[in-house]
Amino acid sequence: MSRRLTSTPRADGFHMPAEWEPHVGCWMLWPERSDNWRDGAKPAQHAFAAVAKAITQGEPVSVCVSPGQYLVARQMLDPAIRLVEMTNNDSWIRDCGPTFLINEKGQVRGVDWKFNAWGGLDDGLYFPWDQDDLVGEKVIELERVDRYAPDFILEGGSVDVDGEGAVLVTEECLLNHDRNPDLTRGQIEANLRDYLGCDTVLWLKAGVYRDETKGHIDNFCRFVAPGEVVLTWTEDRNDPQYAISAEALARLGQMRDARGRKLVVHKLHQPAPVLISAEEAAGVAPVEGTLPRMVGDRLAASYVNFYIGNGVVVMPAFDDPMDAEAQATLGDLFPTRQIIAVPGREILLGGGNIHCITQQQPSAFTHKSHAGLQSAGS
Amino acid sequence: MSRRLTSTPRADGFHMPAEWEPHVGCWMLWPERSDNWRDGAKPAQHAFAAVAKAITQGEPVSVCVSPGQYLVARQMLDPAIRLVEMTNNDSWIRDCGPTFLINEKGQVRGVDWKFNAWGGLDDGLYFPWDQDDLVGEKVIELERVDRYAPDFILEGGSVDVDGEGAVLVTEECLLNHDRNPDLTRGQIEANLRDYLGCDTVLWLKAGVYRDETKGHIDNFCRFVAPGEVVLTWTEDRNDPQYAISAEALARLGQMRDARGRKLVVHKLHQPAPVLISAEEAAGVAPVEGTLPRMVGDRLAASYVNFYIGNGVVVMPAFDDPMDAEAQATLGDLFPTRQIIAVPGREILLGGGNIHCITQQQPSAFTHKSHAGLQSAGS
Repeated sequence: MSRRLTSTPRADGFHMPAEWEPHVGCWMLWPERSDNWRDGAKPAQHAFAAVAKAITQGEPVSVCVSPGQYLVARQMLDPAIRLVEMTNNDSWIRDCGPTFLINEKGQVRGVDWKFNAWGGLDDGLYFPWDQDDLVGEKVIELERVDRYAPDFILEGGSVDVDGEGAVLVTEECLLNHDRNPDLTRGQIEANLRDYLGCDTVLWLKAGVYRDETKGHIDNFCRFVAPGEVVLTWTEDRNDPQYAISAEALARLGQMRDARGRKLVVHKLHQPAPVLISAEEAAGVAPVEGTLPRMVGDRLAASYVNFYIGNGVVVMPAFDDPMDAEAQATLGDLFPTRQIIAVPGREILLGGGNIHCITQQQPSAFTHKSHAGLQSAGS
Repeated sequence: MSRRLTSTPRADGFHMPAEWEPHVGCWMLWPERSDNWRDGAKPAQHAFAAVAKAITQGEPVSVCVSPGQYLVARQMLDPAIRLVEMTNNDSWIRDCGPTFLINEKGQVRGVDWKFNAWGGLDDGLYFPWDQDDLVGEKVIELERVDRYAPDFILEGGSVDVDGEGAVLVTEECLLNHDRNPDLTRGQIEANLRDYLGCDTVLWLKAGVYRDETKGHIDNFCRFVAPGEVVLTWTEDRNDPQYAISAEALARLGQMRDARGRKLVVHKLHQPAPVLISAEEAAGVAPVEGTLPRMVGDRLAASYVNFYIGNGVVVMPAFDDPMDAEAQATLGDLFPTRQIIAVPGREILLGGGNIHCITQQQPSAFTHKSHAGLQSAGS
């Protein structure tokens, strides 16, 4: 049974573990809406299937799918993947799904944030988003874990934790008027501390240039180990991304994490600008109220949008010379894991990438057990 | 992961345990179709909620619900009940759901029978039934157990096992031209042996008078212990049920189970005939192709349609003087369990009763563990 709790994770001794800690599995959502995904979402479905298959090398994957796509997904997905019927508005489970927490005893609970499609009626990417907002509750209930449901709009991709008390966020996203306009910066920090079980909120200014999430940290700058982050980067001073990344680098240099460590910053050079082609734009069936996909629009391509699974890191590739460099860097940063590059362009065309379409579920083991699992699994 | 197996349970050492063996839980399906359930299914929903709550006294209950009813069901069901989104055509998970099997090691697998709404295009109760036919597969996949999917139409309510090699069935149902017209009696027996892991098929002639399933055993005659059955009964020789039950009693007297035991037969006297009232008939929104609910029609009321859960037996009550007698008889037959009578009329108005709307999932423990669990749970 899944109880709705009215206390806070912090008060109850729960926190969000780092993504590199052991998982019992990964959740995804099957893409289908033809006003966002070109060609009836068929290319995206193949891309999602490849991501799911890569992750299954290290952990079980459950793909949630609407009733109408159930049999289609069953045909296209590897038989090892578990299919779960779940109505949805789109396929970004990082953002509409739950955040799983653990405590020192290894118990697992879930946070069921409010979701407003990255901006609500003012500035959201589609309407309605009622079914997406139920995804967190449904997943938590399926897993029979207890649930916190704060009155707070948050997407999982807008926070990144080290599992040791620090959380990275951006002002562009968390202070945006279209998420929680009635909360002060201090109240937002308090919510992050209470519901992620963090001590220190590390603020960057903005996310990747033209990221339609308006500043999600998970496409821009993420922890790869305690005290170490990766940051998307460019050496091209004429690229609008340069100033954003340089400003972040300067801020990161001044920060201390919750344990008092200075941060080591690893740069991940971005690929060449990815622009929507005429053919790609023509494949979308536009609908009023959904963010249009226009020919020539630049997409927020970044290698930072990888998923850290048991034994693997699954990263997006863009058919770009930088792919190999990014893969090598991630190989250095995660020496015990296989770095799997999966084509990410079709996912990016829908507005995000591999991290955005995944949601890890941590293992329900004690920290002592964790140590053993980590060496066995990675 | 859930593999589809092409062997048979019998060959793999699996069999269907008796319903009184320990469960990890019970599955149900939420009623909603207004062409079968009166008053927009609201009275039925209350009745289902009461059944679910009774079963939760002994084991966890998962209620599957269509996307459109998810929030309604959440409000009406006890918070201890797990909700699982599942599109459906109606709410009879005994018949459209999986049959769970165990082996000597305590492993669990599922049989995903074909389902044709009790008679297909010729004689089925509604059309379409495509979503009901997916329920078995979906439940099995959610539970991550391996799956047998024989090319064989069978409803779970048409078989009753003692867990020791015997299965009770009726000719009216299993030999009906509208289920598996191309199979001989011998081939049907072979399928029962192969997929239920049984040795002996015990044939009765027919089921309860006017049962729209056309002879389901689970409303008529069921095992309550190895070597012991209950049989719905009447002393009224003018009631059409009398001849059916008397004929069955004669056959039962001649039978030996798989272990060579003669059967002890316990009679459960039926309630007075239950007829659809004018108000009840008027509450249904008739649709061509769905079995009509006409005023004055007699329903197949029977106390045999109870659910045996951990520590409880949940039986239908009909606001009839016989209710107390049936409850007392079941109390004698299940002395370690609480006998809970739940009003069954609203369920019966839709065509079945408590056993028809439930599906047990046995425990994945070894037989040795079973012994301990049974004494603990009952």
